[in-house]
Amino acid sequence: MNTLDEMIQHFMQDIYYAERQIMKALPKMAKAAQSPELKQAFLTHREETQGQIERLQQAFEAMGQRAKGVTCEAINGLIEECEELLAEAKEPGPVRDSGLVACAQAVEHYEIARYGTLVAWTKAKGFTEASTLLQQTLDEEKKTDMLLSKLGNSDLNKQAAKAA
Amino acid sequence: MNTLDEMIQHFMQDIYYAERQIMKALPKMAKAAQSPELKQAFLTHREETQGQIERLQQAFEAMGQRAKGVTCEAINGLIEECEELLAEAKEPGPVRDSGLVACAQAVEHYEIARYGTLVAWTKAKGFTEASTLLQQTLDEEKKTDMLLSKLGNSDLNKQAAKAA
Repeated sequence: MNTLDEMIQHFMQDIYYAERQIMKALPKMAKAAQSPELKQAFLTHREETQGQIERLQQAFEAMGQRAKGVTCEAINGLIEECEELLAEAKEPGPVRDSGLVACAQAVEHYEIARYGTLVAWTKAKGFTEASTLLQQTLDEEKKTDMLLSKLGNSDLNKQAAKAA
Repeated sequence: MNTLDEMIQHFMQDIYYAERQIMKALPKMAKAAQSPELKQAFLTHREETQGQIERLQQAFEAMGQRAKGVTCEAINGLIEECEELLAEAKEPGPVRDSGLVACAQAVEHYEIARYGTLVAWTKAKGFTEASTLLQQTLDEEKKTDMLLSKLGNSDLNKQAAKAA
């Protein structure tokens, strides 16, 4: 990895792997959520994630590469934390839901960091098509993060604070 | 973990562990950086991190708890990714520096997610002192992330794009 092209390729493969792990995790998170709004948010984000995977495939193609994933230890750690939370907060309800929001936001922030970097790098290299596609996904991830903050702050955290 | 208090305690311990791992990683990142501005940014952030650890200790104390860490798989994964990058991009210079910025921003975003959650939860529970301390750190992490974006976009990425 001694050129920016190689670095872009590596980070694209990293986030491609990450998105596919997220696709697998989201239905479990939707199932674990008690709040109907949170459940819906996870299901909607699963559909979005499908679109983001397709966009990554298009971005790989636009740069003359084949879509491929490489193991990403960061997303594995983040998803492991979600699984631990579900194992330790067994009781369905607002406390567990607040924990699910926290886990999902950590995942969103990982994606925001990665797509932010990839947008900057593809722009610097003049890969305009890839950069436009990645920017669309970056905007979606930021919106999802804000929606999760809103869900937490509007009601969930207050209910969780009251739960004995 | 069936109350928000227990969840706050767990997430505080998680980020306390993370901050101490970051303290250990930053000098290595500063050493690996070629750009003097990036090197300085890592060293400055190391001092800030020391302050953030102390703030966490105060927040634990304000909630009648003893500061303690629990293994955080997410930060371990994120730091592992930084180490892999340094092992694979051996040549010091703008490409490696751009990779270091990317790694550091992923760490910052993890912290932004965690402190964001902790501020929301301590507010919901009325832990005003802890919440004020955590908000100060959240603001610092956001500033560091913006500084890293600025460093990348101002010059580094352009130089990296030109490197053969």
